[in-house]
Amino acid sequence: FSSLYSQIELNITQICLAKECSEDEVSETKLNEDPKVHGIYLHLPPASLTSRVLNTLKPEKDIDGISDLNMGRLVRGDLSKVFVPPRASAVLDLLEKHDASSEGKTILLVGGEGSFGLTLQCLIEKNGMVALKSNWNSKSLQRQVCLCLCVCVDIEISRAQKPKPVDQLAEQIGLLPEELEAYGRSKAKVQLSLLNRLHAQPDGKYVLVAGITPTPLGEGKSTVTIGLVQALSAHLKLNSFACLRQPSQGPTFGFNLHLTGDIHAITAANNLVAAAIDARILHESTQSDKALFSRLVPSVSGVRKFSPIQISRLRRLGINKTEPASLTPQEVHTFVRLDLDPSKITWQRVVDTNDRFLRKITVGQASTEKGLIRETGFDIAVASEIMAILALADSLEDMKNRLARMVVGTSRSGQPVTAEDLGVSGALAVLMKDAIKPTLMQTLEGTPVFVHAGPFANIAHGNSSVLADKLALKLVGRDGFVVTEAGFGADIGMEKFFNIKCRASGLRPNVVVLVATVRALKMHGGGPNVSAGTPLPKEYIDENVDLVAGGCYSNLRKQIQIAHLFGMPVVVALNVFRTDTQAEIDLVCQIAKECGASDAVPCYHWAQGGRGSIELAQAVNEAANTPSNFQFLYHLEMPIVEKIRVIAQKVYGAEDIELSPEAKAKIDYYNQQGYGSLPICMAKTHLSLSHMPDKKGAPTGFVLPIRDVRASIGAGFIYPLVGTMSTMPGLPTRPCFYDIDLDPVTEEITGLF
Amino acid sequence: FSSLYSQIELNITQICLAKECSEDEVSETKLNEDPKVHGIYLHLPPASLTSRVLNTLKPEKDIDGISDLNMGRLVRGDLSKVFVPPRASAVLDLLEKHDASSEGKTILLVGGEGSFGLTLQCLIEKNGMVALKSNWNSKSLQRQVCLCLCVCVDIEISRAQKPKPVDQLAEQIGLLPEELEAYGRSKAKVQLSLLNRLHAQPDGKYVLVAGITPTPLGEGKSTVTIGLVQALSAHLKLNSFACLRQPSQGPTFGFNLHLTGDIHAITAANNLVAAAIDARILHESTQSDKALFSRLVPSVSGVRKFSPIQISRLRRLGINKTEPASLTPQEVHTFVRLDLDPSKITWQRVVDTNDRFLRKITVGQASTEKGLIRETGFDIAVASEIMAILALADSLEDMKNRLARMVVGTSRSGQPVTAEDLGVSGALAVLMKDAIKPTLMQTLEGTPVFVHAGPFANIAHGNSSVLADKLALKLVGRDGFVVTEAGFGADIGMEKFFNIKCRASGLRPNVVVLVATVRALKMHGGGPNVSAGTPLPKEYIDENVDLVAGGCYSNLRKQIQIAHLFGMPVVVALNVFRTDTQAEIDLVCQIAKECGASDAVPCYHWAQGGRGSIELAQAVNEAANTPSNFQFLYHLEMPIVEKIRVIAQKVYGAEDIELSPEAKAKIDYYNQQGYGSLPICMAKTHLSLSHMPDKKGAPTGFVLPIRDVRASIGAGFIYPLVGTMSTMPGLPTRPCFYDIDLDPVTEEITGLF
Repeated sequence: FSSLYSQIELNITQICLAKECSEDEVSETKLNEDPKVHGIYLHLPPASLTSRVLNTLKPEKDIDGISDLNMGRLVRGDLSKVFVPPRASAVLDLLEKHDASSEGKTILLVGGEGSFGLTLQCLIEKNGMVALKSNWNSKSLQRQVCLCLCVCVDIEISRAQKPKPVDQLAEQIGLLPEELEAYGRSKAKVQLSLLNRLHAQPDGKYVLVAGITPTPLGEGKSTVTIGLVQALSAHLKLNSFACLRQPSQGPTFGFNLHLTGDIHAITAANNLVAAAIDARILHESTQSDKALFSRLVPSVSGVRKFSPIQISRLRRLGINKTEPASLTPQEVHTFVRLDLDPSKITWQRVVDTNDRFLRKITVGQASTEKGLIRETGFDIAVASEIMAILALADSLEDMKNRLARMVVGTSRSGQPVTAEDLGVSGALAVLMKDAIKPTLMQTLEGTPVFVHAGPFANIAHGNSSVLADKLALKLVGRDGFVVTEAGFGADIGMEKFFNIKCRASGLRPNVVVLVATVRALKMHGGGPNVSAGTPLPKEYIDENVDLVAGGCYSNLRKQIQIAHLFGMPVVVALNVFRTDTQAEIDLVCQIAKECGASDAVPCYHWAQGGRGSIELAQAVNEAANTPSNFQFLYHLEMPIVEKIRVIAQKVYGAEDIELSPEAKAKIDYYNQQGYGSLPICMAKTHLSLSHMPDKKGAPTGFVLPIRDVRASIGAGFIYPLVGTMSTMPGLPTRPCFYDIDLDPVTEEITGLF
Repeated sequence: FSSLYSQIELNITQICLAKECSEDEVSETKLNEDPKVHGIYLHLPPASLTSRVLNTLKPEKDIDGISDLNMGRLVRGDLSKVFVPPRASAVLDLLEKHDASSEGKTILLVGGEGSFGLTLQCLIEKNGMVALKSNWNSKSLQRQVCLCLCVCVDIEISRAQKPKPVDQLAEQIGLLPEELEAYGRSKAKVQLSLLNRLHAQPDGKYVLVAGITPTPLGEGKSTVTIGLVQALSAHLKLNSFACLRQPSQGPTFGFNLHLTGDIHAITAANNLVAAAIDARILHESTQSDKALFSRLVPSVSGVRKFSPIQISRLRRLGINKTEPASLTPQEVHTFVRLDLDPSKITWQRVVDTNDRFLRKITVGQASTEKGLIRETGFDIAVASEIMAILALADSLEDMKNRLARMVVGTSRSGQPVTAEDLGVSGALAVLMKDAIKPTLMQTLEGTPVFVHAGPFANIAHGNSSVLADKLALKLVGRDGFVVTEAGFGADIGMEKFFNIKCRASGLRPNVVVLVATVRALKMHGGGPNVSAGTPLPKEYIDENVDLVAGGCYSNLRKQIQIAHLFGMPVVVALNVFRTDTQAEIDLVCQIAKECGASDAVPCYHWAQGGRGSIELAQAVNEAANTPSNFQFLYHLEMPIVEKIRVIAQKVYGAEDIELSPEAKAKIDYYNQQGYGSLPICMAKTHLSLSHMPDKKGAPTGFVLPIRDVRASIGAGFIYPLVGTMSTMPGLPTRPCFYDIDLDPVTEEITGLF
């Protein structure tokens, strides 16, 4: 012990500072010399946390729950205020694990949803920690800088930071060994058979984390989600599970954080469909009906048989025959010719890299393709309809059927052509059979997390998977909690969660947690423009209760009302930043309750981890025990136009909608094809309740323009386009990869920050 | 036991037949009614192999080594001849595992390198068995049909088929738990740190399996490799390891058999480079030197610093400064402008799907790319230079340096532009950090196998990885054997193995096993054309010693001589087919020895598994203990043209070579760039020793035309193009995916055969 004791003495003199400041403020900081320093971090192994040690450390605050915080300890420094910022601990953890030579080195840990995602993605790679959703703007990586001046602590101590082995975690949450498929030491897929085994088990409480309309910097829904489950687990001792989306590799410049390969599987499946489309067009253009038929239904040992996939196509064509020889020439013609109209193919190829030059391309230019050139493009992999399907499927069979239904284009006679018509649907199901199993991981505090699916929040529904939620709800049991997260603001992510995801899952949430920040509220209250890369205007640093009040009475109130449209109780979670004053914090909580929130509490998870979210956990627990009377916003049987109008008027606050002729024509076509009763998935900016990104607060009296309307028949929704959506990001002039390097000897990654 | 006993009785009446026949002969076969039936398979759990059971079964042959064969048993049937064909057992295994309802169903198990690869790839997915290299021609899947009329045996029994858990296998071969990274239950990556731990351990014997010039059907190098290690392990009780290539997903229509994700990592890395190239061209075209510089070397907390990758570029530009402010405007210009010539970009994007329409495309057609359109294309992922590097790298550092050196194109002033110039080299190393670890798996008989890397055998070197061989050589120890395989015929795969792979690894092989088949020898002896899809001409079914002799004295002799050029002892392995007669078999072995082979033996692994290769194992063991005096074919310092000529004349038997003007110009350019001393990687057809696929035997007196010359600077070779090579296969009219399906309830894959 004495050696450990001296080690602690050592560490008290070698401490880690953490503060938040704008890029320009970053500078070599000496301990105690910097007024902005508000964090002091001492990193100890749980083993060392004997009362004698703790007394020696003389913590400034009571050490209640200290044994639950296995990431660092509060100690008295010579500083006025003491925290353990999770980000600092993450950095320190990274330093210890990734850069043994970082003594005294200045590390930039970038903040913001995207980059915080990056931090933890890096942790995943090394330790299997949890990834948070990263956003699309690589520039955000230069933003909201958090400086940590760190030192390496003893390697024995750093070992204490390792997450528990995934099989141990699995056992703790009641999984059987045979239900687990380990990928390395800290990631595992969970088999869907669990749903059968726990069939009789009652579901736990179901909590949705949504947000007010965010600034371009993001307001921390994902961190609130993590803080909440940590508080529920470690402090309220309630079983709890977080369900998060898997970040795309694109924004992390194609980083191969392939987790358990789900996005690779989606890419393979998506591009198999694309290859099948063009190859089929080629083969139809060069072969007679007879030749096509004899190849599509080959004679094996003198016998021709239709494959099940072909039988199913025949059914849809109204040909109720199973004997190939019995088809009439006309039936053979109908069967063998998809007759795809090259100008009406909607299926795009995908790649999980930010490759802007693939946005619009011409394919088929080699002489071997017989001049069948056409224009098409690539999307980022997570924009694939297959990702949206992965998130909505509630069983292997459901996924298989959705994959078969995917419409890839239209025939020259105007008929939709599906993946099944291409004969590829069975193969797609096989390609996706492992991806459908959620991936089990853990938070920095060791609570379980499912990372599964991450569809776009504009052209798709932006929610994590139905199956992850279902498995988690069984695992936590009646009194437990599952906290899942919806992308963007509540007007988008939450509305889609209810009208699309809950319809697909049949699940009904108990509480909505609405995340707000003083920063975003000030913006909605009329504060100056907040943008990437530039330091925050002083209105956002200094106290300004008027701006805060303005934001509360506009955007916050409106978002609360939206949740009430669905009959849900709302708990407002104020994600507190260092610059927020008590007056501002109190004001937000007071107005939020005025506006109908069941409760409104400040969250200090950023500063204190799970302990910082205890109040939120208590509020959520209380709200979850009040009866909710959930209802959908619209009936599926309503005409498409009406469904769009309801969302525009009731959710966005629009006066009305205005359809382009294109949009009108598409809607007519979808109705005629029998797609009229699908739910609506609006593709709208997340930066305003309206379609105008710079209209903050709660705009009214505007007419929402519907530029075009598209459909994801497999995923099962119609998506009206409000403005243009980029489905393929690009690389900046200096992508982060300039700093990324690998130490060939230690195998450690450097330069991620 | 009695219940098991009755079960056995049951199985004796429900047995599995296996025969080889042409597609037309396939028909519903009743037990004992079909004269062609020569296989009878009874499938038992090892537990049941008590002497009493074995006596009951009255094996026709001695049951020596029976306890080693954990895949099936020889039993007396009412049949004249009895085997346990591994393919039949593989099918039975598949049936039991994948299709519980297959009682009495007729299964087509396709043969040929490619399709056999497919069989086992399917086994991998389910059981982590070994994948064999699949070839490029999907049509081969309709070929060399082997009919199995099978029944499902008791599920308890089928469980006995499961491979041992990978951690158990790892322990058996002396790996420490911390050196293993499990991927599921039966696959694991092995850490390179093993090389340090076993540094002092002497290497085992190193055996290369090559082949004579094959028919389009493939002659079974991979199966000989597996048979050989099984015989060495199970029967000669020598430690032995097989090192195989990872099959591409492409030919299996983009099947997501992603193993441990190596090919996905290569795809991500390759396409990151591609995205960086086009994005850089765009940014250079729209920004001033000053703007580029301030973005490429951004001010962080008021300080501008070059990243290590940028410093390294400065060095290569001859600018020995580290202080950004100190660069002259001219130096800034030189530093920030790669000035890539769009018409001279050699880097292609890749996808691991057979997508022919991506062979030639135009990118950058979206308005956001400012009209910077250019023509380019996609290759199949395994054609990426990064795959060739993965196979040649002998350490993480070596891989990192090779990745940095990759030349992606030429500047307008004619300078090569590298991955490091793009600033992406560090990120590439990080993307590939897991892929560099070989994947441990096992054969059907439970002997260890590394599956690692699978580069093209024409535009690349076609050999599995240097690191897999090195790790395996340490693991087997001094008296053990590592059997590795070279793609195509010995004139291509073996020549590249010696002149390229052995140069990179520093390893020296002890023996060359040259695989021949009576079928291929008859073709070289003047037999009729052998082609895919059509039944074999009768010359190949009936005895014909003249054709056999012709093939032995031409192609076989020549290939033996090629091995002798390198000073290697050669053991000829005749891969025996059912139709081969004793006279033909004896003749091949006799002539092979005449022509200088140390030994020549028939192999019955196809029929008997490892037991069928015991004679080969003994011959190889003997030859390995005779001293070899290995030598390279050429010195690296020879001029490029001379190196090409030596290969053409000494290996292929050409009169001379003829260079196109393009080829001449390229060679001058490479010399001028200092690439003159790289080894040569010929891109030539594998169907003839010459460049003319239909010239069989051992052609002479021809002039080898060198159409063009290219370079893979990172991989480290120059590759002259003899004829045209397709680097992107296409899908046939009816790809196999029509039959593929997934049972949503049992999660079992159906229709792979």
